[in-house]
Amino acid sequence: MTDFAAIAAQLEGQAIELPSWAFGNSGTRFKVFATPGTPRSVEEKIADAATVHRFTGLAPTVALHIPWDKVDDYPALRRFAEEHGVRLGTINSNTFQDDDYKFGALTHVDPTIRRKAIDHHLECIEIMDATGSRDLKIWLADGSNYPGQADLRGRQDRLAESLAAIYERISDDQRLVLEYKFFEPAFYHTDVPDWGTSYAQVAALGDRAMVCLDTGHHAPGTNIEFIVMQLLRLGKLGSFDFNSRFYADDDLIVGAADPFQLFRILFEVIRGGGYGPANPDGHSEVAFMLDQCHNVEDKIPGQIRSVLNVQEMTARALLVDRAALAAAQDAGDVLGAHQVLMDAFYTDVRADLAGWREERGLPGDPMRAYAESGYQAEIEASRVGGNQLSWT
Amino acid sequence: MTDFAAIAAQLEGQAIELPSWAFGNSGTRFKVFATPGTPRSVEEKIADAATVHRFTGLAPTVALHIPWDKVDDYPALRRFAEEHGVRLGTINSNTFQDDDYKFGALTHVDPTIRRKAIDHHLECIEIMDATGSRDLKIWLADGSNYPGQADLRGRQDRLAESLAAIYERISDDQRLVLEYKFFEPAFYHTDVPDWGTSYAQVAALGDRAMVCLDTGHHAPGTNIEFIVMQLLRLGKLGSFDFNSRFYADDDLIVGAADPFQLFRILFEVIRGGGYGPANPDGHSEVAFMLDQCHNVEDKIPGQIRSVLNVQEMTARALLVDRAALAAAQDAGDVLGAHQVLMDAFYTDVRADLAGWREERGLPGDPMRAYAESGYQAEIEASRVGGNQLSWT
Amino acid sequence: MTDFAAIAAQLEGQAIELPSWAFGNSGTRFKVFATPGTPRSVEEKIADAATVHRFTGLAPTVALHIPWDKVDDYPALRRFAEEHGVRLGTINSNTFQDDDYKFGALTHVDPTIRRKAIDHHLECIEIMDATGSRDLKIWLADGSNYPGQADLRGRQDRLAESLAAIYERISDDQRLVLEYKFFEPAFYHTDVPDWGTSYAQVAALGDRAMVCLDTGHHAPGTNIEFIVMQLLRLGKLGSFDFNSRFYADDDLIVGAADPFQLFRILFEVIRGGGYGPANPDGHSEVAFMLDQCHNVEDKIPGQIRSVLNVQEMTARALLVDRAALAAAQDAGDVLGAHQVLMDAFYTDVRADLAGWREERGLPGDPMRAYAESGYQAEIEASRVGGNQLSWT
Amino acid sequence: MTDFAAIAAQLEGQAIELPSWAFGNSGTRFKVFATPGTPRSVEEKIADAATVHRFTGLAPTVALHIPWDKVDDYPALRRFAEEHGVRLGTINSNTFQDDDYKFGALTHVDPTIRRKAIDHHLECIEIMDATGSRDLKIWLADGSNYPGQADLRGRQDRLAESLAAIYERISDDQRLVLEYKFFEPAFYHTDVPDWGTSYAQVAALGDRAMVCLDTGHHAPGTNIEFIVMQLLRLGKLGSFDFNSRFYADDDLIVGAADPFQLFRILFEVIRGGGYGPANPDGHSEVAFMLDQCHNVEDKIPGQIRSVLNVQEMTARALLVDRAALAAAQDAGDVLGAHQVLMDAFYTDVRADLAGWREERGLPGDPMRAYAESGYQAEIEASRVGGNQLSWT
Repeated sequence: MTDFAAIAAQLEGQAIELPSWAFGNSGTRFKVFATPGTPRSVEEKIADAATVHRFTGLAPTVALHIPWDKVDDYPALRRFAEEHGVRLGTINSNTFQDDDYKFGALTHVDPTIRRKAIDHHLECIEIMDATGSRDLKIWLADGSNYPGQADLRGRQDRLAESLAAIYERISDDQRLVLEYKFFEPAFYHTDVPDWGTSYAQVAALGDRAMVCLDTGHHAPGTNIEFIVMQLLRLGKLGSFDFNSRFYADDDLIVGAADPFQLFRILFEVIRGGGYGPANPDGHSEVAFMLDQCHNVEDKIPGQIRSVLNVQEMTARALLVDRAALAAAQDAGDVLGAHQVLMDAFYTDVRADLAGWREERGLPGDPMRAYAESGYQAEIEASRVGGNQLSWT
Repeated sequence: MTDFAAIAAQLEGQAIELPSWAFGNSGTRFKVFATPGTPRSVEEKIADAATVHRFTGLAPTVALHIPWDKVDDYPALRRFAEEHGVRLGTINSNTFQDDDYKFGALTHVDPTIRRKAIDHHLECIEIMDATGSRDLKIWLADGSNYPGQADLRGRQDRLAESLAAIYERISDDQRLVLEYKFFEPAFYHTDVPDWGTSYAQVAALGDRAMVCLDTGHHAPGTNIEFIVMQLLRLGKLGSFDFNSRFYADDDLIVGAADPFQLFRILFEVIRGGGYGPANPDGHSEVAFMLDQCHNVEDKIPGQIRSVLNVQEMTARALLVDRAALAAAQDAGDVLGAHQVLMDAFYTDVRADLAGWREERGLPGDPMRAYAESGYQAEIEASRVGGNQLSWT
Repeated sequence: MTDFAAIAAQLEGQAIELPSWAFGNSGTRFKVFATPGTPRSVEEKIADAATVHRFTGLAPTVALHIPWDKVDDYPALRRFAEEHGVRLGTINSNTFQDDDYKFGALTHVDPTIRRKAIDHHLECIEIMDATGSRDLKIWLADGSNYPGQADLRGRQDRLAESLAAIYERISDDQRLVLEYKFFEPAFYHTDVPDWGTSYAQVAALGDRAMVCLDTGHHAPGTNIEFIVMQLLRLGKLGSFDFNSRFYADDDLIVGAADPFQLFRILFEVIRGGGYGPANPDGHSEVAFMLDQCHNVEDKIPGQIRSVLNVQEMTARALLVDRAALAAAQDAGDVLGAHQVLMDAFYTDVRADLAGWREERGLPGDPMRAYAESGYQAEIEASRVGGNQLSWT
Repeated sequence: MTDFAAIAAQLEGQAIELPSWAFGNSGTRFKVFATPGTPRSVEEKIADAATVHRFTGLAPTVALHIPWDKVDDYPALRRFAEEHGVRLGTINSNTFQDDDYKFGALTHVDPTIRRKAIDHHLECIEIMDATGSRDLKIWLADGSNYPGQADLRGRQDRLAESLAAIYERISDDQRLVLEYKFFEPAFYHTDVPDWGTSYAQVAALGDRAMVCLDTGHHAPGTNIEFIVMQLLRLGKLGSFDFNSRFYADDDLIVGAADPFQLFRILFEVIRGGGYGPANPDGHSEVAFMLDQCHNVEDKIPGQIRSVLNVQEMTARALLVDRAALAAAQDAGDVLGAHQVLMDAFYTDVRADLAGWREERGLPGDPMRAYAESGYQAEIEASRVGGNQLSWT
């Protein structure tokens, strides 16, 4: 069994991107609960994200969502972020909240609406140029609710065309990342429902088009780590949207619903060369990001808990004795091989990680440190008036 | 094979309650699309529901949702409805849109909040007295999102207490109907997640407490007609919320996703004595109601289509040659028995039903008749200004 | 609405391959029930399959499973089949019933076992040469039961290698068809669990490698017709294994569990050019085959029922008024477009099909004709002694 | 956070019953792999079970399955077991492997077959009298594969009658325990598919009729710990069949697929008074049993691993700081309450448990101790010839 000292160095430089929208209000179709201290501007969202980074050292970048995070002066926003100790990250497009997109965006039968949706992405690319972002992430709500409502094939062909129009505007140091989702908000068919569709679409585009795997976007029972393995093998795993779920796309805190699944996912990321420090050339192309929906829990501590969960589970996955594992696998020792994995999973890394943090000038217990910091009281007091930001 | 003439009489008097909220805007957590002509008042919702009844003869009552449909003068609302040819039906309580209920209503740890939720139901019962409604339907959003967040057992005990406090105020000609739901909006546990829990709770209350089965509220793969059979056998099937789904609680038009499932459900309703005209005493205790969410389709035609689907499928289920079915079942003739069922399912009853309608002074094709009636154009023109009603 | 006369010609030449193993005993892990008249030899299985064809005109070929159907003289078997009015079809390999394959076949860590599994497929190709079969179908039970038991990535790479070794022996008029399956008999990971994996693997092989879609091999809720559309679009839909299911890989009669799903699948086959007569060049590359497991129902009538179900549903799918559908889709008329589909689905084609059959010298009601034919009594009387064949 | 010393005493006396059939060969419908050393007699199965107990101290009883474990002299078998340090436990009936039960046993339309099935259970009760067993466990394969094949309601009524006939023969110190299962081997409907049905049936029988919860017998996504809570609340949780699964009834080693779920289940058992030492009167009525199917892993180590998994997870569940948990729950501190649970789950109890075992004269590492004991080599050498026992 590998021990913590041997893997501590590999934890260095782990980065988990935070979504700006995690700090606004979110909820279900039944109710969005408001909470004191919720940001009323992009800057306040970035300040909250920077706070998560300050307490954990794990979240150096913030993803933006356009138009939710649209501002007049992106260079200024970039400076604002940097002054707060973080950088602007992935740009997420939004084609699901305009009445025009009721029946689709990049797949719509009407070329005018497709053009509008393509232009929105071109605008996102311009913003990326200004923010220095690498990734344009596309999640589409496109789909239909009733059999017959839409021509599945025609939509797929139009999707290919629209993506090609966007891809040709991506620069050499940028990437297009296409997310898939099993269902919701469409309830009969979704135009990018599975990794196979996302893969087939991005493979047709080129090298800088990749797949985004959101851990909550699969059919019940899907072996997600298998998909991680396969996409890494095919060279097409661009990024993760981390969260967890018991049922559908519940968007709970990553690692909360099935910690062992998160462990297996991270083990395959490492096994397949998708984890940075383990990479020969010192960095990985796979972006780690959170995408969660804090309905009932506190937002900033929710994000702190989330990045800690990813870090703790990464440590456990790094602890797997891969030589012993390979030996047991090759010997057909089913229980022995399983045991090697479980030994790492059941290792309690929390005290070691607290020490690791303290060595780096971070609080040993970021949850407690945040609670005691007074930040929450401060924002609740100062953020009075204005409109709390939310998804919609 | 039974023919249509033999079952035509049994279609007489079929009644499917419409939910007032089906005529307001509804949607997903991502977007609620607005549409021209959407009601801005309870009265306009009732007028729309009455229109569905006028074109189909199938929807003589309208369910209300409190506080969405709160008015100052219920007797006046009752008269309004009756003047439009419909009656007020089931009263639905709402304990999921008040900030106080963030962590539960009837199950909340805080007795003040439980009291508030109980009082809300007592108010609903007063409204029932005024509207002449028989059923108080309780659907609870109560639940939790994270393991540990809540004490499952304490909540169940408090639920029993709260329900008892409500039940004791139900009069002899009223009923309490408790709905269950697999998940959403709670994503870890739901306090009434399955028929067993609803049954155990209402069985503890008394004879006038029943279970409500919403066809979209089950785990994937659940055999819903089995539950229909079981609840009828136990004397506890109070009502249906009809809709359909491919994934979760998609709230699509009943019969749209899996028509054969709707057929099997209706067959078990009839088999178990839950369908009115088939009952010895001339009426059934089982209430048929729609509960759907028209996200992308037109609302009034969506409701017309829905009640027609229930009627058509009821006709098919009545066509099952039950003597032949029993004979094949008793003989262990698997394919023969299956065939008897399929023969009824595959019978095209649409022309016969059109004739049946015309004999009763109804349009043969209610969808077309509505489209040609000018009603939609009229409400789009007249309902300008004001606030379109929606779920939230 | 298109009428039957307009589509009758397109039903001409429809062919659904029968699996030889459908006529042997099959069951669950709990019990395999034996039935009188079950074949004791490959020839008796072919005779039964030919009987299905004689009564339906729909099943001109029989798939073989090696080694279950291994014989010494394939040319003789071919003549036997042809004398009975059918041809030998797809050759199915078997790598799941040899002790050596406990931990995998084409993916095994041990090159000796991989070689054995490859050689088995080369032997299958030799049999194809002798039988004149076009397709080699590979379904792999390869997978693992416990996290850690196997190296997912290494297995995928070895799978690619093994498939390449098989593919290079396929002749120009033969095809390799790779089936995927969600789970079972492996319960943690399966090496070809989804269409994406099968597609990625066969795309790496070449033009004559295709995907086989078994309708029972998906996660709950999967939109199968979407996959049909996508594989046709990508030019990689090689064949269907038809059956139906309520839960997992239940292997029930096709169309029994969800007839509307079968309708939607067949509609997408036709829409995407996968249905023979609709193809410009007069034939389709997509093979239709049954793969079911008759546990409790009679086998020969079970197969007759199955091919009739496919034919009836094909007729309904052909009846869809595609011009009206496209018009409603383009107009964003959700309910109208859905209605066009449902109108075809609800059309009762059974009497028309009975007439169509009679015009072609076939029995109008093949189920009844078989029951009255005396064939069943004859095989029950004559097939006494010997060992009834079964899966295992 | 509670520490191990504080809970060590509560681990005393934990008992997990082993199923005799775990030591025979088992598998899937595709293949049952044989392994050297597999028992050829009931006595050899008991000897293996006793070995598991010798190495772990956790498995003092062995469940029998009739007729698999039928012997002429039960008192002798009882002595044999006791001489090996274990006792005979639950008697499991079997109504799924006789041709007569093809269409049902306790629910069959034919009273002769129902009588046969009832008589089988009466014979089981006689065996219980001889073996001193407390529990008669009934798992029924009864169900149907096709809609229409069976009359759901008639079967449910006959089930009630048959169970009553069995229950009246149960003595005052015996119990009837009715297991439910979502599906398999029946693929359309199962006569006892869910806890609600099992509960309604046993509630109608009386106090000594209870529900058996098999952790692998639920629909995807079902919150099993909720059912544990509910059945304990209703006083009807009789026993567990432990195993784990990723998909259907995979019958993997308990705790292997989702360790956190096992933790939550055991926490609810303790919370609800179902765990022995935590009970005021010093014992619990809830029987813990394994029911797994070792397809590819070694059987005896598989059982050792399983009981250790239950013990380890029980220790973690006992470690939950329930006062802190209640405080956080009452305060609406979602993340805090969740954290209390996770703190216990992530505590590494393995070293403490090794010490605990050694204090009691047991091997600290039972898996290694067994591997080094030579037992496996011995049985492989001595158990040559004869027929290896298996399920079928």
